[in-house]
Amino acid sequence: MRIGVAGLGLIGGSLALALHGTHDLTGFDVDRATRDAARARGIRTVDALEALLPADAVVVATPLRAVLPTLAALAPRAGGAVVLDVSSVRTPVEGFVREHPDGARVVGMHPMAGRSASGFGMADARLLAGRSFLVVPTASSDSEAVRVAGCIARDAGGVVTVCSAAEHDRIVAVTSALPLALAAALAIAGADATAQLAAFAGPGFRDATRLADTPPDLAESLLAANAGNVVAALARLRAVLDELERAVAERDAPAVRATLERAASARALLG
Amino acid sequence: MRIGVAGLGLIGGSLALALHGTHDLTGFDVDRATRDAARARGIRTVDALEALLPADAVVVATPLRAVLPTLAALAPRAGGAVVLDVSSVRTPVEGFVREHPDGARVVGMHPMAGRSASGFGMADARLLAGRSFLVVPTASSDSEAVRVAGCIARDAGGVVTVCSAAEHDRIVAVTSALPLALAAALAIAGADATAQLAAFAGPGFRDATRLADTPPDLAESLLAANAGNVVAALARLRAVLDELERAVAERDAPAVRATLERAASARALLG
Repeated sequence: MRIGVAGLGLIGGSLALALHGTHDLTGFDVDRATRDAARARGIRTVDALEALLPADAVVVATPLRAVLPTLAALAPRAGGAVVLDVSSVRTPVEGFVREHPDGARVVGMHPMAGRSASGFGMADARLLAGRSFLVVPTASSDSEAVRVAGCIARDAGGVVTVCSAAEHDRIVAVTSALPLALAAALAIAGADATAQLAAFAGPGFRDATRLADTPPDLAESLLAANAGNVVAALARLRAVLDELERAVAERDAPAVRATLERAASARALLG
Repeated sequence: MRIGVAGLGLIGGSLALALHGTHDLTGFDVDRATRDAARARGIRTVDALEALLPADAVVVATPLRAVLPTLAALAPRAGGAVVLDVSSVRTPVEGFVREHPDGARVVGMHPMAGRSASGFGMADARLLAGRSFLVVPTASSDSEAVRVAGCIARDAGGVVTVCSAAEHDRIVAVTSALPLALAAALAIAGADATAQLAAFAGPGFRDATRLADTPPDLAESLLAANAGNVVAALARLRAVLDELERAVAERDAPAVRATLERAASARALLG
């Protein structure tokens, strides 16, 4: 397929590196130095977003705040190209598609991959290998467009799950935004508890607070762009935590044990 | 020094492996197969706890529930031996020492190391290298006993911080028990949110829930044996989380950003 990738950061760059051997791939980034770095690693680049067209598919992999403007620039001239976007929050894209009913076929393709780092310098085809890719149809997509998204996700090494935008945003509020919020709160509670945090922080605390290092723009997007679901997810988490706190406070050992066993069973679902 | 290690699980076994090259080291475990495994890796063992004496120091590295009985067995016959214990909660040991004022000099030596795994099979001298060791004097210890604890901790590869029992338990409630409680609550919230948890769980969720795999006995001890501090730590965490939730719910971007930046600064303290 002729595939364009718009935005060559950690995710877009990794997608480009994973796909350029097996597809006719072209990349674009607004930053010239990033384009130069991509070319140095064998990616063909163009100097304007629109030059990614014509294509069979264009993947929008910009930061979240640039996704809708990029979709708006691409959609009117997409022709038959399927426009994929890797946004980690789907509702804004769904809203855009409904407001532009005559635009391109848009499908979400959200890889559940990430690092505290960002940028093309950290991009790596292996970042995506074996990762879950959430493929999210929109009001404008048809089965052929969803098939193209699945095909590209699998060619990048991913494992495909199809879900609705509402389901996506409700669940990632729990699996992506909550871990971020908890890591941030825990890091703050740790620093408030002691001036010697490094001395008291074992590997567990380090793992549990790693996401507090998420690049601020991304972190803010995950919380703010999905605010309703995040608030609901925090409420559900608090209910579990309150039950555990009650059990600890009342020295109710069987209840503490039952909660811990329920948690271990849940964690075991990850294999 | 002549050093005995009572309990050859993950921590005791790792201590024995780290120290037996440079000290005259003897190990004991109630489990015969564990003693055999330790001997196969070059550790001299004895078949009874009391046979670890006479010694310059004995390290009690049993599961938490066996620490006080083991101290009770060792203290009356310790002679000049300093008795160290690796308990991750100090208040019960402090209470024991105050009730047995004529017993041995007891000092806490708590390495901030751990894995989801347990047992001698996972023991490894490198587990302790570069780790923080919290050295905690008790009512029965003197400066010589504290010096011995620090020396052994450093010889095992650790970096020593001295703190009081009260300070220890207050802070590890935040740095050890809270991460465990949050990992458990998050794993449960994740499984409640979707039947396809593996598909929606990226590396962040996996890291953030890793401690839900903590062996149940250890996990329960960390929460139950330090209940008062854990409840207080949960209250402090909830205050931070509530502030973040308010900011998200009210679309207060500067407040969200400020909390995330505070968290990133706190995390940076870990280097």
